[in-house]
Amino acid sequence: MTGFIPEETSDEDVEAERTTYGPIASVLRELAESSIRTQVSPEKAAEAVRALEQVRDLLNSDLGGASYGVRIRQDGTSRAWGNNVIGVRNPLAPPLTIHHEPDHVWSEFTLGPQYEGPPTLVHGGVSSLILDQLLGEGAAAAGHSGMTAYLNVTYKRPTPLGRLRAEARLDRVDGWKAYMVGSISDDEGVTVEAEGLFIRPRWARTIPEDSATLRFD
Amino acid sequence: MTGFIPEETSDEDVEAERTTYGPIASVLRELAESSIRTQVSPEKAAEAVRALEQVRDLLNSDLGGASYGVRIRQDGTSRAWGNNVIGVRNPLAPPLTIHHEPDHVWSEFTLGPQYEGPPTLVHGGVSSLILDQLLGEGAAAAGHSGMTAYLNVTYKRPTPLGRLRAEARLDRVDGWKAYMVGSISDDEGVTVEAEGLFIRPRWARTIPEDSATLRFD
Repeated sequence: MTGFIPEETSDEDVEAERTTYGPIASVLRELAESSIRTQVSPEKAAEAVRALEQVRDLLNSDLGGASYGVRIRQDGTSRAWGNNVIGVRNPLAPPLTIHHEPDHVWSEFTLGPQYEGPPTLVHGGVSSLILDQLLGEGAAAAGHSGMTAYLNVTYKRPTPLGRLRAEARLDRVDGWKAYMVGSISDDEGVTVEAEGLFIRPRWARTIPEDSATLRFD
Repeated sequence: MTGFIPEETSDEDVEAERTTYGPIASVLRELAESSIRTQVSPEKAAEAVRALEQVRDLLNSDLGGASYGVRIRQDGTSRAWGNNVIGVRNPLAPPLTIHHEPDHVWSEFTLGPQYEGPPTLVHGGVSSLILDQLLGEGAAAAGHSGMTAYLNVTYKRPTPLGRLRAEARLDRVDGWKAYMVGSISDDEGVTVEAEGLFIRPRWARTIPEDSATLRFD
């Protein structure tokens, strides 16, 4: 198992992919909210379904592999554009842009009604999903990329839908094991905390460390 | 904070809502996969974006509240149709149908490429998201509904995209605290395990227990 796809791709190719397909995911994100909130008539809803089916058939007229995977370019950079949290081509991803600082990673993002659990609140599992991504990317950024071995999430108080911030940092390292900590905050402070252990898979231990190349998120 | 919306709704009203708006979410789920996999020309992609924008405008011509919330009917049943994991109107939800047995709850479901993390694998955070929902619903089904206080997830081995099963059961109760355990399995057995603590919020402790009415997922 590696599933990492090496490719020869120019910067222009990557930008062309982003500008061609990124807008599809963007408008599908808006449509997810519309799907939940709309109150249009049955006739208009049926019209919407027919139009969406036509778009589906158009897009499905030329399909690539069964999943996007992680595509690794000749310069070591990678694209996980199908990823459930950061994938720019995935309408389920907010998507998070994760910023790398010397000692931590962070992201600011907005969660709309499609991320709801309890009324007006972020689904507790969505918070754990986002923290898994942040902690995993933080481990990679610290030079200790690996797959999640465990993730312990503690809910301090409810997280409201809306504008949020998440961050993660390396707590300590033990061989192939990176212990990470992180949190989600709203304007009032921390709502959810997490600690996680990320371990480099055995098959990947011979690959030179490069946070841009090795991604297990 | 309650955010639970009481309503007077007939069975026919509920079924009309399902048949009117459910198909929109269904085709948007298919489109999420199309968005990730399509290789159509820039011209066709642009055509798709324009058509999707038109559907968005159509659906947004009559919008309800900012989020779906949890709507509680006069008979005590409820609808969390915007929920990120089980919401039938939420394209981000697979959606899971969770079955209640006397001593546990379970669900079988399929995760496509929009749930990917590492190549060909379910995002680790998606597994924690699904387990949060299962454990929370299991607590409610056991008569101990509450909000997640902590969720500890252990990854035994990678979870492949595709057909999966999840289940959860009550481990023990201590006053307002319900300790839950659960797992996700593929055909070869358990891939992810979780234990979680669910606590009834203070404001909800005077409400008579009814697993159909009290939902914090």
